[in-house]
Amino acid sequence: MIRVGVNGYGTIGKRVADAVDAQPDMEVIGVAKTQPNFEAHTAVKRGYPMYAAIPERMPLFSEAGIDVEGAVDEMVADADVVVDCTPSGIGADNKALYESHDTPAIFQGGEDADVGEVSFNARANYDDAVGVDYVRTVSCNTTGLSRIIAPLREEYGVEKVRATLVRRGGDPGQNSRGPINDILPNPIHIPSHHGPDVNTIFPDLSIDTLGLKVPATLMHVHSLNVTLEDDVTAAHVRQLLESESRVYVIPEGLGIDGAGKLKDFALDAGRPRGDLWENCVWGESIAVEGRDLYLFQAIHQESDVIPENVDAIRAMTESAEQAESMVTTDEHVGIGI
Amino acid sequence: MIRVGVNGYGTIGKRVADAVDAQPDMEVIGVAKTQPNFEAHTAVKRGYPMYAAIPERMPLFSEAGIDVEGAVDEMVADADVVVDCTPSGIGADNKALYESHDTPAIFQGGEDADVGEVSFNARANYDDAVGVDYVRTVSCNTTGLSRIIAPLREEYGVEKVRATLVRRGGDPGQNSRGPINDILPNPIHIPSHHGPDVNTIFPDLSIDTLGLKVPATLMHVHSLNVTLEDDVTAAHVRQLLESESRVYVIPEGLGIDGAGKLKDFALDAGRPRGDLWENCVWGESIAVEGRDLYLFQAIHQESDVIPENVDAIRAMTESAEQAESMVTTDEHVGIGI
Amino acid sequence: MIRVGVNGYGTIGKRVADAVDAQPDMEVIGVAKTQPNFEAHTAVKRGYPMYAAIPERMPLFSEAGIDVEGAVDEMVADADVVVDCTPSGIGADNKALYESHDTPAIFQGGEDADVGEVSFNARANYDDAVGVDYVRTVSCNTTGLSRIIAPLREEYGVEKVRATLVRRGGDPGQNSRGPINDILPNPIHIPSHHGPDVNTIFPDLSIDTLGLKVPATLMHVHSLNVTLEDDVTAAHVRQLLESESRVYVIPEGLGIDGAGKLKDFALDAGRPRGDLWENCVWGESIAVEGRDLYLFQAIHQESDVIPENVDAIRAMTESAEQAESMVTTDEHVGIGI
Amino acid sequence: MIRVGVNGYGTIGKRVADAVDAQPDMEVIGVAKTQPNFEAHTAVKRGYPMYAAIPERMPLFSEAGIDVEGAVDEMVADADVVVDCTPSGIGADNKALYESHDTPAIFQGGEDADVGEVSFNARANYDDAVGVDYVRTVSCNTTGLSRIIAPLREEYGVEKVRATLVRRGGDPGQNSRGPINDILPNPIHIPSHHGPDVNTIFPDLSIDTLGLKVPATLMHVHSLNVTLEDDVTAAHVRQLLESESRVYVIPEGLGIDGAGKLKDFALDAGRPRGDLWENCVWGESIAVEGRDLYLFQAIHQESDVIPENVDAIRAMTESAEQAESMVTTDEHVGIGI
Ligand SMILES: NC(=O)c1ccc[n+]([C@@H]2O[C@H](COP(=O)([O-])OP(=O)(O)OC[C@H]3O[C@@H](n4cnc5c(N)ncnc54)[C@H](O)[C@@H]3O)[C@@H](O)[C@H]2O)c1
Ligand SMILES: NC(=O)c1ccc[n+]([C@@H]2O[C@H](COP(=O)([O-])OP(=O)(O)OC[C@H]3O[C@@H](n4cnc5c(N)ncnc54)[C@H](O)[C@@H]3O)[C@@H](O)[C@H]2O)c1
Ligand SMILES: NC(=O)c1ccc[n+]([C@@H]2O[C@H](COP(=O)([O-])OP(=O)(O)OC[C@H]3O[C@@H](n4cnc5c(N)ncnc54)[C@H](O)[C@@H]3O)[C@@H](O)[C@H]2O)c1
Ligand SMILES: NC(=O)c1ccc[n+]([C@@H]2O[C@H](COP(=O)([O-])OP(=O)(O)OC[C@H]3O[C@@H](n4cnc5c(N)ncnc54)[C@H](O)[C@@H]3O)[C@@H](O)[C@H]2O)c1
Repeated sequence: MIRVGVNGYGTIGKRVADAVDAQPDMEVIGVAKTQPNFEAHTAVKRGYPMYAAIPERMPLFSEAGIDVEGAVDEMVADADVVVDCTPSGIGADNKALYESHDTPAIFQGGEDADVGEVSFNARANYDDAVGVDYVRTVSCNTTGLSRIIAPLREEYGVEKVRATLVRRGGDPGQNSRGPINDILPNPIHIPSHHGPDVNTIFPDLSIDTLGLKVPATLMHVHSLNVTLEDDVTAAHVRQLLESESRVYVIPEGLGIDGAGKLKDFALDAGRPRGDLWENCVWGESIAVEGRDLYLFQAIHQESDVIPENVDAIRAMTESAEQAESMVTTDEHVGIGI
Repeated sequence: MIRVGVNGYGTIGKRVADAVDAQPDMEVIGVAKTQPNFEAHTAVKRGYPMYAAIPERMPLFSEAGIDVEGAVDEMVADADVVVDCTPSGIGADNKALYESHDTPAIFQGGEDADVGEVSFNARANYDDAVGVDYVRTVSCNTTGLSRIIAPLREEYGVEKVRATLVRRGGDPGQNSRGPINDILPNPIHIPSHHGPDVNTIFPDLSIDTLGLKVPATLMHVHSLNVTLEDDVTAAHVRQLLESESRVYVIPEGLGIDGAGKLKDFALDAGRPRGDLWENCVWGESIAVEGRDLYLFQAIHQESDVIPENVDAIRAMTESAEQAESMVTTDEHVGIGI
Repeated sequence: MIRVGVNGYGTIGKRVADAVDAQPDMEVIGVAKTQPNFEAHTAVKRGYPMYAAIPERMPLFSEAGIDVEGAVDEMVADADVVVDCTPSGIGADNKALYESHDTPAIFQGGEDADVGEVSFNARANYDDAVGVDYVRTVSCNTTGLSRIIAPLREEYGVEKVRATLVRRGGDPGQNSRGPINDILPNPIHIPSHHGPDVNTIFPDLSIDTLGLKVPATLMHVHSLNVTLEDDVTAAHVRQLLESESRVYVIPEGLGIDGAGKLKDFALDAGRPRGDLWENCVWGESIAVEGRDLYLFQAIHQESDVIPENVDAIRAMTESAEQAESMVTTDEHVGIGI
Repeated sequence: MIRVGVNGYGTIGKRVADAVDAQPDMEVIGVAKTQPNFEAHTAVKRGYPMYAAIPERMPLFSEAGIDVEGAVDEMVADADVVVDCTPSGIGADNKALYESHDTPAIFQGGEDADVGEVSFNARANYDDAVGVDYVRTVSCNTTGLSRIIAPLREEYGVEKVRATLVRRGGDPGQNSRGPINDILPNPIHIPSHHGPDVNTIFPDLSIDTLGLKVPATLMHVHSLNVTLEDDVTAAHVRQLLESESRVYVIPEGLGIDGAGKLKDFALDAGRPRGDLWENCVWGESIAVEGRDLYLFQAIHQESDVIPENVDAIRAMTESAEQAESMVTTDEHVGIGI
């Protein structure tokens, strides 16, 4: 059993913990939090040993009726791998802690690329992380792009990617984030930083990205254009994407015309938290004009990186090859709708 | 086993079906739908026999790979009780169908009060529906108000209720509803129709309601003022509400400051669809000035009426007394967070 | 001519400057800003002498092509009255500056009440500010409530006010403020601080307020209940409110059902910035049940306090009596739709 | 003087009337409306003779205190040109009326292209409308695209245009339109109908468009990619666009990062209704990668087509050449910020 600690138990951390807990070859030896909020109580109910990310705050947890196992460094010392799911920037600060205990660690996409030796997407570059100690799983948007680009490159060759990322302003619980009524070019500068982030996965890819932020909380939507090296048909591309386990091609007849209905669908299917770990590509949108492929996909920012974190653990600990890991992850997370 | 058919399998209908299915004394003998959309596929996965609400559309279901048992009137004929969950107004149209088969039926709050012989809230007037053939469970807002008013009346006496209902513009999947950026007095006329609807449950209650509509999808929020007949303390009221099984008093320390975090909490707890069947009253908001009680509560429009529908089935079929029914419903729906 | 300086030239400051500039007995001797953003360019176009709120930043203004007259303290020294329109909290910090130059100053509602000797609403307590050196005009919400309460008290006597304030999350340009999709009890604690703020105008008034925040930017909406001392009719109250110059009673036939159309109406009427300086009360909403008066009003947070600032200048400088000042202000600001 | 009638006095119609009224060579001989709502009162205040679009409704206008000159067909008979600004689809129905009076007419972009003999954009194809009787000014989005494409084609040649149109869900007053919290691919099908609409202006242009709808009301935002035939620099393109009178290149230093601040800027500048008749291109966003040009532009859906309607009148009546007309329009509408 790979002993995994989760440092930072918020939107990403709680999902990583549950996904790790569901794997046959892993166990959650603890989660660390700064505050005894509602998520801390969830952790307790799920049976995850609780560690205090800030040792002085331990009494706050006791007052809230939550037993604390110890301070975060004990969890780090005890773990085979730590998954750092703290807010952007904190992860880099935490690296020294992981190094001081010689504990390999995974960082999230909110960190700069150089926090890890490798940036990681299971489908695209699993092998690069094999045996590596510090790995960064790329952001939700980069993960979403990588999963589409990888098969397209392998199958047809990619000349150029142009992507407009229409991003949700905040997660459902983040009620202090805006905008309320605006469409923000964000960043205004073009190309955005998302393209270079994709290049951490595909170094030689020609990609230009444009970012926007809008008043929605459920999912990002990508407007994607890929100039391929070969002539293709939309039907062929569709088949290719349908064969990818982490891409869900939405069938036409379902009446799913946005993220609201997609989430309803996931909730109806009994998915935990209504999570959509897969890229959700509208089948009807897949179109080819010459060598130009177009499509729309919705990306569930809160969950698409979760299976990637699980696979990164196996790569770093050299406990499985890519295909085996991905299949195991998919099965135990519950991918396939 | 009480044989239950669900006519209209949308936001309310799919939840009613699942809640009925979970009861030890009931079974879902079928659900009827007009279209083979994503919710139809969910029904199939859940094993509910599918009936066509519009017989001519049966071929559409077959084309979508969904087996249809028959037309809706067969389901109605076969059921002990039908729960009508069709859109507002359609329920009244359907009444003749239920009558023609002598099948008792429950209607939802979108219908006018006179569609049923009785308007129903399990906590407030269960006995009024015992043995009755046509019952209307009241709307999400009226249900939310009734659950608070009932215990306050019993314990302290209520002189007057004044409530401002800040209503969500649409459900998460209803993407064509607005407003996008407005706060609408709705209806502009005061008092709104919600007060008279509460009077179908408490005929002699003095209540004035004001309705608004805002750009949010998750829950309604009520700003409630109740002038009581007795002097009370906020602590006493809080204790009273905490003792109600279908009221959840949100503890201060959890950091839950809105509907977004409430829903996250419900999803974390593993609740199906993140449903919050209980009124969610902010404990911190309960305040008393003289005989004036104030509080804020959030009402999950998609699910608070679900346990009420289950209880209405038992009342109509005279299969359990109020307390027994409510306890059974709560246990098998999963109330208690 | 009263020589007025405006410190802080943002949402409120730019409107105060224009309103002052339009008065026959006042002139804008300067406005002070921290940054040469688009609003600074507007100031230049309007011919307002520009002062640097932070002297070290003067070069930034020159680089942007904006001539700076000097540092803010020169403006303060030169003014008969300064209107401080800096962000909440900064005003209090600035008080020492105004005192050091013996320059009377007006602060805005974002400051604590004790920043001034008097909290001010022209309709309700003009005389309290006569000859006073440091005055705070109350917030947009308190201004909106005061304008309704004053005539009701005078005409009928007020036993109790209960108000639910459904507040916009941010102004149209404040794109980093939320919520995006939530209805927030804000503050969760009841009664909210708004009631005590109204008590700075009417010390002996019995008032309980409840605050919420929603994803809208145009206007606040108040759901208001006033228990009067006399029996009245809705028609009588309506007439009373229609006779108030800073209350606009929206006629039924116009088809104005929200803040969006209200703003369109103001823009169509050629109002500068589409400002609605008046409380906008829906005529159709005015209702009386016994001694309980109810109504909905929309409050344009960006502009309702503007005429109040102008009147405060006259009161402080003892240059006009209440009625004369209000009439002059109204005429030159452009009140009356 | 060209005698102009405006049929349909809503969002577009009221702006067209004001713009026509401001021209030295045109007069508004009447506006026709279906209802005496707030916009009808505005028309009266502006002195536009009112005609009843539905003759039977004349009494409604009288009851509302609005004098009606007559029925719409009298206005049509009396006009040299009618600008039809009725809702999508109604314009086509109205064509027979215009034809029966031999009155040339302009239709808006909500109509199908074949309603007119020519689709029109002043910058791109003014001459095509010279002397033509039935002309359609293209939609807000097509107008916005055409104004950028025309100079790029002339200067560099255009190989291909790819545009993602992030569209506002509704105008500020349209409070029943959604979505509230979603990002909708709309239409889901790619390419969207917007590209073919641009082809009514540039028949041989290679263009693929993708449409989305989001919860915002102020402006559309275009994420634009143009593959040029020549190598260029961003600076050169910027200069080119800055020389276009109906393109406003937003300077970096102003701090304008979205539509909210853009509208504030327009309102501060005293623009009627805060209108932004120009395409608003973020200067900072103009970028070139190889022959690929990228930029973000905001399009004010309510007003960008207004100058185009004015120019169409001159083209149809052969009263001015393109350059002269555009200069006159710009000057009297007030273009240039
Ligand atoms: N939310 C998303 O949409 C999303 C998507 C992909 C990647 N990410 C990345 O995942 C990371 C986590 O984001 P999130 O959305 O889960 O944030 P979050 O705010 O929901 O959760 C962060 C958690 O870390 C805790 N924390 C704060 N400081 C800490 C510290 N010093 N030590 C330990 N715990 C601490 C917080 O209490 C909280 O529980 C970020 O790098 C983010 O960029 C987020
Ligand atoms: N959604 C809420 O927030 C909410 C809350 C409380 C009560 N209600 C009430 O519940 C009722 C149902 O509302 P909903 O939100 O579930 O609506 P919905 O639109 O989500 O679902 C209605 C379902 O009925 C089906 N339908 C339509 N016509 C039909 C017909 N003739 N026969 C059979 N099925 C038909 C539709 O296909 C759909 O599946 C309404 O009376 C509504 O007012 C809704
Ligand atoms: N916006 C509203 O809805 C509203 C309504 C009523 C009252 N108020 C109150 O008015 C005041 C101003 O609010 P606003 O909305 O106009 O804010 P704002 O942010 O729009 O404008 C504040 C201006 O002050 C400038 N500024 C910042 N620090 C400064 C300093 N040290 N010296 C001088 N200028 C400085 C900023 O650059 C900006 O131009 C606050 O007290 C606020 O609570 C605001
Ligand atoms: N609003 C926009 O963003 C926008 C932008 C560009 C083009 N357009 C196009 O302009 C046209 C008008 O749109 P709008 O937004 O101004 O609509 P609107 O609804 O604001 O105004 C339409 C007006 O026409 C009136 N009307 C309705 N039926 C009529 C009839 N039979 N005869 C005369 N008048 C009638 C209505 O009362 C209303 O005053 C549409 O084709 C639309 O697609 C709209």
